[in-house]
Amino acid sequence: MHAYMNIKKSARISHDFWETTTEAGMFDIVAAGLGEGRHRSLADGHEFVNMSSYSYLGLDTHPKIVQGAIDAVRAEGALNTSTSRMRIRFAALRDAEDALSELFDVEAVTVASCAAAAWASLPLLASGLLTDGTPPLMVFDKNAHFCLNAMKPNVADEAPLTTIRHNDVDALEDLCRQHPQVAYIADGVYSTGGKAPVEELLRLQEKHGLFLFFDEAHGISTVGERGRGAVLETMGGINDRTLIITSLNKGFGASGGAIFLGRKGSPARRDVALRNGGPLMWSQRINTAGLGAVLASAELHRSDELPLLQRRLQRNIDLFDSLLPTGLSGDGLPIRFVDIGSEDATVRLAQALLERGYYASPIFFPVIARGKAGLRLMLRANMSAAEIEDFCRQLKELRDRHV
Amino acid sequence: MHAYMNIKKSARISHDFWETTTEAGMFDIVAAGLGEGRHRSLADGHEFVNMSSYSYLGLDTHPKIVQGAIDAVRAEGALNTSTSRMRIRFAALRDAEDALSELFDVEAVTVASCAAAAWASLPLLASGLLTDGTPPLMVFDKNAHFCLNAMKPNVADEAPLTTIRHNDVDALEDLCRQHPQVAYIADGVYSTGGKAPVEELLRLQEKHGLFLFFDEAHGISTVGERGRGAVLETMGGINDRTLIITSLNKGFGASGGAIFLGRKGSPARRDVALRNGGPLMWSQRINTAGLGAVLASAELHRSDELPLLQRRLQRNIDLFDSLLPTGLSGDGLPIRFVDIGSEDATVRLAQALLERGYYASPIFFPVIARGKAGLRLMLRANMSAAEIEDFCRQLKELRDRHV
Repeated sequence: MHAYMNIKKSARISHDFWETTTEAGMFDIVAAGLGEGRHRSLADGHEFVNMSSYSYLGLDTHPKIVQGAIDAVRAEGALNTSTSRMRIRFAALRDAEDALSELFDVEAVTVASCAAAAWASLPLLASGLLTDGTPPLMVFDKNAHFCLNAMKPNVADEAPLTTIRHNDVDALEDLCRQHPQVAYIADGVYSTGGKAPVEELLRLQEKHGLFLFFDEAHGISTVGERGRGAVLETMGGINDRTLIITSLNKGFGASGGAIFLGRKGSPARRDVALRNGGPLMWSQRINTAGLGAVLASAELHRSDELPLLQRRLQRNIDLFDSLLPTGLSGDGLPIRFVDIGSEDATVRLAQALLERGYYASPIFFPVIARGKAGLRLMLRANMSAAEIEDFCRQLKELRDRHV
Repeated sequence: MHAYMNIKKSARISHDFWETTTEAGMFDIVAAGLGEGRHRSLADGHEFVNMSSYSYLGLDTHPKIVQGAIDAVRAEGALNTSTSRMRIRFAALRDAEDALSELFDVEAVTVASCAAAAWASLPLLASGLLTDGTPPLMVFDKNAHFCLNAMKPNVADEAPLTTIRHNDVDALEDLCRQHPQVAYIADGVYSTGGKAPVEELLRLQEKHGLFLFFDEAHGISTVGERGRGAVLETMGGINDRTLIITSLNKGFGASGGAIFLGRKGSPARRDVALRNGGPLMWSQRINTAGLGAVLASAELHRSDELPLLQRRLQRNIDLFDSLLPTGLSGDGLPIRFVDIGSEDATVRLAQALLERGYYASPIFFPVIARGKAGLRLMLRANMSAAEIEDFCRQLKELRDRHV
């Protein structure tokens, strides 16, 4: 027991900070969307800019995507087929998966969320069904996303499992030398900032046959040709020793999650996943609204608008880095962590920022280590230079006062 | 390893039947919806009635629910808030959870699917956070749904775990005598038919303090006052030693899943779940289309239309039972299993039925035991008597020929 999880202990450790944060009014804000990442609190009418929105390209309120969602519901006349997707599916589901496969040149299947994608694919990878029948040694990066870590007990029931330090390529190579089949489980872009050392990992793949599993929830759309993300942009294209899961909310601006199973046109691997991939087998799917949004977003990703939005995002990242240097400055990614340390000071700072019109997420254990609290900021293409400048000024002023 | 799962072994056992079924054209039919559970295959224009649709009241194509979905997307102007629901949520999410709490007189939270509800609540229950800090002995019914069983490794990392025979109340009572805290994990209505012995389980709860965990994915809407399902209808109302998860697709006709945490107005339990319940903590939520559908369906559940639809469903169940007696006849539930035995004969029968205009799901291992294959039928309120009569006639004729 408690080999991987200890919910009671986590609850005890995080309890005080949840209470403080809730009292500070920094949780559960019910708000109307005003577009461009702006919200109005329904409780008091207070308007604020969301500085921690993961809609990196601003696609969540893109008129074409919202309309795509509405059109698909109307066209299919229902939110789902009321039968497992394995049996009867709407054209919207086929078309959305075809569009994703085409866009990223992969074999894509969709599920209800990125976490469901982890559930569908991690035990499957551990089973050995994707590695010639041999369960690989499953090596987790210590900082892999919570939804990957939460699958550890399931993975450990199918394969040997170990966890290594963050981005520790040397330790990983040692394991590759000792074991015939190794799979590495990591985020492409980490939700608290930074990315995987993809080039070095590809070198291990080339040399030792390492299988690579990436969560690209924060990489897709944000960077890369046609928004293919940090991993595929470095790889050039997927291969059959790599599996990528992603969110289709977040940067992509639609709903649900996806699994990129390998090269486009891999019917055998697709069948293995659909027949044995947990949530894929049950009645799990993105509803027709989400599928319509996926289709519209995929079209937008193929258009000239995408590089334009990516350039605007990069310009905003550069502006932010020039005004408020952090440990992550210059990495070209939109996630910035402003280290504060004390949980209390972090909450007070966030509260003061909100009063001045900016929501910035206070982040603490179990998302990151205890005593390392701070603000997670997420830059967007649809922030104005004036917003970023004013926010940085306010943040610096308040940080000097509160910390 | 393989204490709970063995995906490679399951894949080997089920492989041949998947192949046969796929060759027979009984999987992955891409179809347009024609309303009233009717579909048209896009490949060949063949029209058929879905005799295995879990939209028991026919709500999946109800105009008010479909319109509710569209209206909510338009009103919020996005599919989600692009931030964790714990931080900023739309009014649609608050309103949908309030409406569910009100409708079923429970403390309801929503998640992306019923499986996500299992993930959010089973390890939480195992942790002891819902049972005064003591992790309960987690007793699974052998026939509990796959999505509950798939959580066994996670549960076993938090609490002792055992599995008992289907509906074995005596074995459960023995365990209650031996252990101070016991939780029983079962379906309210089983996806392959039949239900939990709720009255006897309540007796054990009364006598020994047994905690009851039910998956009511197939019970909600289908039966009970205002569609509260088989469990709540028997209980009269939820109590704080009972937790219910459900789908909001299926009978409810919307999208996603829900957790009924206890009595309405249980903010402490709600906080415990939101802060420690896996998928509830991440960016998991029903999109605004699904939430709009939930709101519209909740309103419909409070109207005079619901008992009318439930009566139509009961009439159809009775008609079916009179024409084609099965082991489940007379239980008042819409799921009927027509036992065939041989996997091959089952597939041939289903194929012949589809040619005659009826889709009936062939069910086999791992959903049920090997060599016990058959057709899973699901009756709906929006089937005509003529449809049911003709289907039963065809099924009997073909069964005599194929089996």
